[in-house]
Amino acid sequence: KKRILVTGGAGFVGSHLVDRLMLMGHEVIVIDNFFTGSKTNILHWIGHPNFTLMEHDIVTPILIQVDEIYHLACPASPPAYQFNPIKTIETNVIGTSNMLSLAKQVKARFLLTSTSEIYGDPLEHPQKETYWGNVNPIGPRACYDEGKRAAETLTYAYQTQEKVDVRVVRIFNTFGPRMDENDGRVVSNFIMQALQNQDMTIYGDGNQTRSFQFVHDLVDGLISTMRNEFTLPINLGNPVEFTILELAEELKGFIGSESKLVKLPAVQDDPKQRRPDISLAKEKLDWEPKFSRQQGLLETIQYFRQIVEADC
Amino acid sequence: KKRILVTGGAGFVGSHLVDRLMLMGHEVIVIDNFFTGSKTNILHWIGHPNFTLMEHDIVTPILIQVDEIYHLACPASPPAYQFNPIKTIETNVIGTSNMLSLAKQVKARFLLTSTSEIYGDPLEHPQKETYWGNVNPIGPRACYDEGKRAAETLTYAYQTQEKVDVRVVRIFNTFGPRMDENDGRVVSNFIMQALQNQDMTIYGDGNQTRSFQFVHDLVDGLISTMRNEFTLPINLGNPVEFTILELAEELKGFIGSESKLVKLPAVQDDPKQRRPDISLAKEKLDWEPKFSRQQGLLETIQYFRQIVEADC
Ligand SMILES: NC(=O)c1ccc[n+]([C@@H]2O[C@H](COP(=O)([O-])OP(=O)(O)OC[C@H]3O[C@@H](n4cnc5c(N)ncnc54)[C@H](O)[C@@H]3O)[C@@H](O)[C@H]2O)c1
Ligand SMILES: NC(=O)c1ccc[n+]([C@@H]2O[C@H](COP(=O)([O-])OP(=O)(O)OC[C@H]3O[C@@H](n4cnc5c(N)ncnc54)[C@H](O)[C@@H]3O)[C@@H](O)[C@H]2O)c1
Ligand SMILES: O=c1ccn([C@@H]2O[C@H](COP(=O)(O)OP(=O)(O)O)[C@@H](O)[C@H]2O)c(=O)[nH]1
Ligand SMILES: O=c1ccn([C@@H]2O[C@H](COP(=O)(O)OP(=O)(O)O)[C@@H](O)[C@H]2O)c(=O)[nH]1
Ligand SMILES: O=c1ccn([C@@H]2O[C@H](COP(=O)(O)OP(=O)(O)O)[C@@H](O)[C@H]2O)c(=O)[nH]1
Ligand SMILES: O=c1ccn([C@@H]2O[C@H](COP(=O)(O)OP(=O)(O)O)[C@@H](O)[C@H]2O)c(=O)[nH]1
Repeated sequence: KKRILVTGGAGFVGSHLVDRLMLMGHEVIVIDNFFTGSKTNILHWIGHPNFTLMEHDIVTPILIQVDEIYHLACPASPPAYQFNPIKTIETNVIGTSNMLSLAKQVKARFLLTSTSEIYGDPLEHPQKETYWGNVNPIGPRACYDEGKRAAETLTYAYQTQEKVDVRVVRIFNTFGPRMDENDGRVVSNFIMQALQNQDMTIYGDGNQTRSFQFVHDLVDGLISTMRNEFTLPINLGNPVEFTILELAEELKGFIGSESKLVKLPAVQDDPKQRRPDISLAKEKLDWEPKFSRQQGLLETIQYFRQIVEADC
Repeated sequence: KKRILVTGGAGFVGSHLVDRLMLMGHEVIVIDNFFTGSKTNILHWIGHPNFTLMEHDIVTPILIQVDEIYHLACPASPPAYQFNPIKTIETNVIGTSNMLSLAKQVKARFLLTSTSEIYGDPLEHPQKETYWGNVNPIGPRACYDEGKRAAETLTYAYQTQEKVDVRVVRIFNTFGPRMDENDGRVVSNFIMQALQNQDMTIYGDGNQTRSFQFVHDLVDGLISTMRNEFTLPINLGNPVEFTILELAEELKGFIGSESKLVKLPAVQDDPKQRRPDISLAKEKLDWEPKFSRQQGLLETIQYFRQIVEADC
């Protein structure tokens, strides 16, 4: 039984991680400022003797005694991280520095959730961990992409300089229950639109590709990485790649929706393709996604259906 | 007559900029923590009514009333910025954020001195400002390269979000009097070695290329950029490119030295070639280097000769 800190634990991925760690019998402390997360996501644990929720912004330092830190706190969807770009960089750099400094002080193992966005609009396909990326340092996504790159740099600077025991995962697009239905990500947008027979909004020609993993697979990978001795960055994602247009058609079919697909202008600096090379995760963690896309999407549709019905 | 803040004004480039601004009759305030700079570089201004020197670390916020901020503070040579990588990132991110926040509060125009290192080991040659770069986010140079990329990101975030009036220059290798003779950069190393008939240390095979500008050309470009209305990043460098081996031979010849050229192991992630495309500076600022390499190197040799003689 360990004392485990999850920053951003009230968010989409964080709350699923908390569920698993609680079920495993650990003591879990969540730090969150509720910018994009919500208390609802972890309401079911409030009052449990092993669970502590602290409303706190990681840009301010904090000292708590823990054995492990899963550092997730950071808005993850483009509209959320572009709402206040300065704050996004501060969360990534000052916030990550505060958490690394905490890890150093209490000698905790530290895991950073980085992102496939550090590869930018990749010129190498699929992306291996050794790829250095193709990121616009002054574009509209830079506060997130460069913020995460700097967070990785800081993480390894603390490893070398302060002997902090670090892990870094680069997460590729992930979906599942508890995605924020208003945060503008494609799976939630399409499902909400399809469920309400509204137009499904394709940005650009829809030929850009992504690879989506179900959140339970990701949580598995996070826990495996924390337990493992390998310290360099590891991609966590589902390598099955498809176009945004295919995703729209598929969801429309699963839902039996009447929605029309409409094409809107492309988003600036939107990566044209993205697919993880996960051979490192297979080799080092013996990890790979277990859920089929269909199963994941159906469970997610069910989740959003409840929301739509509750709204009526 | 303006009140002008120069952060890092006790350093190599900063002190030359201070000289020019003082001669133009401005009030100049230098902020420096003397990590790589030295009081000697600006000693000749101490006591002048237009000159103020403040020993201050930019990682701590400060409030002073100024019209313009030239933000140079940051160690620039690899041994200096790798001495304390965490501090280098803090200087670049927290320090730059503090200076941008100052610019916002006092409504000053702000100029960031970024670097050609944000292009990393470039796959496009020569480098235009539109090139996104090829940087290893977790390599030994990352604290500087990613730190500067994040500083650029922050600068444009303050422009968009807080309406700060910003300028960004990307400086390519620069040399001249007042380079720190111990900081390990190639021009100072080779000149000091040649003057003392010591072995001249070539890292790797010496076929890597650079393009060196004389510091007075750079200072000209900095002042032109600050005066100009163009706000996107501008390369400032000398496009004449040559190999490190050629530089060694040339300096040996100028000095009439007996030194031998010795090859040492290559440095990790050392860019193989670097040359600025300066057509944007020509177009927007009507700027290009005025000094020949020979003139610049001869003046620099003279400067280091005094130092060697003083040491004897
Ligand atoms: N979901 C994905 O597809 C995906 C992909 C790549 C990387 N990631 C990374 O995984 C992590 C979690 O992502 P998510 O999808 O759960 O996002 P999310 O927005 O749902 O969760 C982030 C959580 O962090 C909290 N937070 C944000 N800023 C904070 C601050 N300054 N102080 C304290 N708490 C703060 C938010 O309130 C929220 O609860 C993020 O670091 C994200 O960058 C996610
Ligand atoms: N010289 C070059 O070839 C070159 C090339 C590209 C970019 N640049 C950039 O130009 C700027 C000046 O470079 P330089 O060659 O004069 O370097 P330098 O090291 O001689 O000068 C930097 C100055 O900043 C000061 N400083 C560093 N950290 C500080 C902090 N936290 N608070 C206050 N002062 C601090 C140092 O004491 C020093 O006086 C730097 O931003 C550098 O990144 C230089
Ligand atoms: O990227 C962001 C943007 C905002 N916030 C936080 O969300 C809250 C609301 O932010 P907003 O900018 O709307 O308001 P303010 O900072 O003015 O309270 C504040 O606690 C912010 O610090 C955040 O954590 N990350
Ligand atoms: O309503 C939407 C939302 C997103 N997208 C596209 O779907 C892809 C994935 O977007 P998301 O924001 O989910 O993730 P990210 O851009 O971070 O990969 C991108 O190409 C978006 O332009 C879309 O076509 N319609
Ligand atoms: O990249 C660096 C490294 C150090 N310093 C400063 O230089 C001084 C000496 O640094 P060192 O790490 O040697 O000592 P300490 O911080 O322990 O005093 C301190 O004021 C540091 O903040 C700096 O400005 N930039
Ligand atoms: O004594 C030295 C110092 C540097 N270099 C090489 O000269 C080039 C320029 O190095 P410097 O540190 O001056 O600048 P930067 O690497 O930042 O361009 C690099 O390829 C170095 O490996 C060298 O061969 N001998």
